[in-house]
Amino acid sequence: MATKTLNDLFHDGLRDIYYAERKILKALPKMARGAQSEQLKAAFEQHKEETEGQVERLQKVFEIIGKAARGKTCPAIDGIVEEGEEILDEFKESPALDAGLVGAAQAVEHYEIARYGTLKRWAQELGMNDAVRLLDETLKEEMKTDENLTKLADAGANRKAKAA
Amino acid sequence: MATKTLNDLFHDGLRDIYYAERKILKALPKMARGAQSEQLKAAFEQHKEETEGQVERLQKVFEIIGKAARGKTCPAIDGIVEEGEEILDEFKESPALDAGLVGAAQAVEHYEIARYGTLKRWAQELGMNDAVRLLDETLKEEMKTDENLTKLADAGANRKAKAA
Repeated sequence: MATKTLNDLFHDGLRDIYYAERKILKALPKMARGAQSEQLKAAFEQHKEETEGQVERLQKVFEIIGKAARGKTCPAIDGIVEEGEEILDEFKESPALDAGLVGAAQAVEHYEIARYGTLKRWAQELGMNDAVRLLDETLKEEMKTDENLTKLADAGANRKAKAA
Repeated sequence: MATKTLNDLFHDGLRDIYYAERKILKALPKMARGAQSEQLKAAFEQHKEETEGQVERLQKVFEIIGKAARGKTCPAIDGIVEEGEEILDEFKESPALDAGLVGAAQAVEHYEIARYGTLKRWAQELGMNDAVRLLDETLKEEMKTDENLTKLADAGANRKAKAA
């Protein structure tokens, strides 16, 4: 068996986040339906559209490395999404639901920020400038989404949760 | 059954990260043993000591809310650690191993950054100033650890992986 290289690591990481993005795509409509405030519903719906674009960018990166766009089970995102579903279930009737959903969504965003940051640096090392640009566009979107979620928490979700 | 409130959400979140920190404490010696470079070994060993302090801070927060320090299974960290172990296993003999371990560790750090950021804001909303201070100390440590890992990647782990 040939020694594994940074190219293999990059390919593995790409498959991991490709699986993760598509898992998130399935989870977002549930989160949007569950959210109590109109702002949070809208945020989840908007992020779903953004995620569709992020999946397309990943498909372009697979093309750049000449591999089929194929995911690889990512237990990390499975666990993170499972915790979000627990919040949906356990806080269904609670005024703290939205605060919990914002927290769950920020765990998702941070997972993506970590992975895209790493993939971008590996692509830089490998001299794949087009891949760097694509990964960086998504990384910036994820950071922006995380900031927006913090604003939603500060703007009311946490206060409402406390008022309960 | 009484309606759940932000206090319940805070308590649940605390149990989640308490489980996560102790899981990380168990995983770090394996990562340190596996790492190829002395710098990365040292970084994991140093972070283990830091994590012990973070567990103690969480115990103080449990005291503040008058609850027993008890974890709650956190499938997210289970998945994240599992992915780190896969890297250890699949890239054991590869010069890309350290680059992969840095990536795995940054996924752990970002999970913690997300959770401590959320818990800190909930503690603020609940007016628990001592808890805010404790959670913020740990949050800052996790952010610093994440930065240091990026430096290790840039300082050589990724280059070595490519040279393979």
